[in-house]
Amino acid sequence: MRGNYLEAKGISSAVISRLPRYYRYLGELNDEGVERISSKELSRLMKVTASQIRQDLNNFGGFGQQGYGYNVKYLYEEIGNILGLDKKHNLILIGAGNLGQALANYVNFEKRGFIIRGIFDCNKSIHGKVIRGITVRPMEEIESFMADNDIDIAVLTIPKTGAVEVANRLVSYGIKGFWNFAHVDLNVPDHIEVENVHLSESLMKLSYNLGCRKGGK
Amino acid sequence: MRGNYLEAKGISSAVISRLPRYYRYLGELNDEGVERISSKELSRLMKVTASQIRQDLNNFGGFGQQGYGYNVKYLYEEIGNILGLDKKHNLILIGAGNLGQALANYVNFEKRGFIIRGIFDCNKSIHGKVIRGITVRPMEEIESFMADNDIDIAVLTIPKTGAVEVANRLVSYGIKGFWNFAHVDLNVPDHIEVENVHLSESLMKLSYNLGCRKGGK
Repeated sequence: MRGNYLEAKGISSAVISRLPRYYRYLGELNDEGVERISSKELSRLMKVTASQIRQDLNNFGGFGQQGYGYNVKYLYEEIGNILGLDKKHNLILIGAGNLGQALANYVNFEKRGFIIRGIFDCNKSIHGKVIRGITVRPMEEIESFMADNDIDIAVLTIPKTGAVEVANRLVSYGIKGFWNFAHVDLNVPDHIEVENVHLSESLMKLSYNLGCRKGGK
Repeated sequence: MRGNYLEAKGISSAVISRLPRYYRYLGELNDEGVERISSKELSRLMKVTASQIRQDLNNFGGFGQQGYGYNVKYLYEEIGNILGLDKKHNLILIGAGNLGQALANYVNFEKRGFIIRGIFDCNKSIHGKVIRGITVRPMEEIESFMADNDIDIAVLTIPKTGAVEVANRLVSYGIKGFWNFAHVDLNVPDHIEVENVHLSESLMKLSYNLGCRKGGK
């Protein structure tokens, strides 16, 4: 319903992609005990124009009041709901290499409702290893584990070779979304959500921008 | 010069942000020995319209030839040059926790010219530890290390507390860009480039999209 509601109201993907940053700032303000904030103050903090803030948040209606500003806690919770953070997600992590272990040790994801339930790797030598209370299992156990644990998201921290094939297997087992760190485009059906984190591409953008900066001198 | 050239030609940041993906596909085709490709074939591979490909690549002029298509190796190298990958960057990594160690062990960045020269951490217990040939050093040594090693990029894999202050110190030591994994906006001057990788925000987008998907059923 939420999706339909927002789509019907024509919320652009640009606005959606800015919501996590609002959520972060409002969460920090809330932690500091700030009860309300004007779009002007929020603008100064976030280095975004007050008019953009008003436009973005007006999409969701009723958060701001003339002369009062925004109720921090209410807005924080509402944006959290819009982002679906009021729901729990059960994750499996595929690939217990350095990056996989780093993500498994990140407690902040759990606070947002993303719970890693299982870790899988094709490397026999680390089967049985325990990472933050979770045992690394062989890939062959994924299907039964997913059936037993209501898993909806797979985190792929495996090399790009094999990632497409693993993703297809997971789709056939009923996975709903991927958080994909493998440096390849997964070839999954349209109804499966994929959020890519292509680290090398991020570094290339930095490299490009550094080149422009030097060029501009 | 490169920057000025592209800016003068009015290349949009949307096009720039798509270049790393072209670079990846062309690199794979080149590795497979493919010499030339039509925009139609590339379109099928990348799941982008042929017209978008032609528009994007026309920005840089002279790559495609009617009836021949694109010369894969030439286009791959040219896009690499535009992205500044023909130059070497010397990096320091601040924060040798799980994520920092994962990045330090990633050999692919080196292949693209991003060389981690030094690793620093405030935790005394890991000073002297060697990660892929690089010794973890105390934070106090950053300034002299930067002066001696022509460092231009700092990778921040530290918690958000303290990240802003560390970034400001690095700016005073002459750093030119940040690859920032700390979940906070760095407060650095405009001429310093910052590429943020906010992992939790990426997860929130996935959560939002999963919510829409369910809603759409």
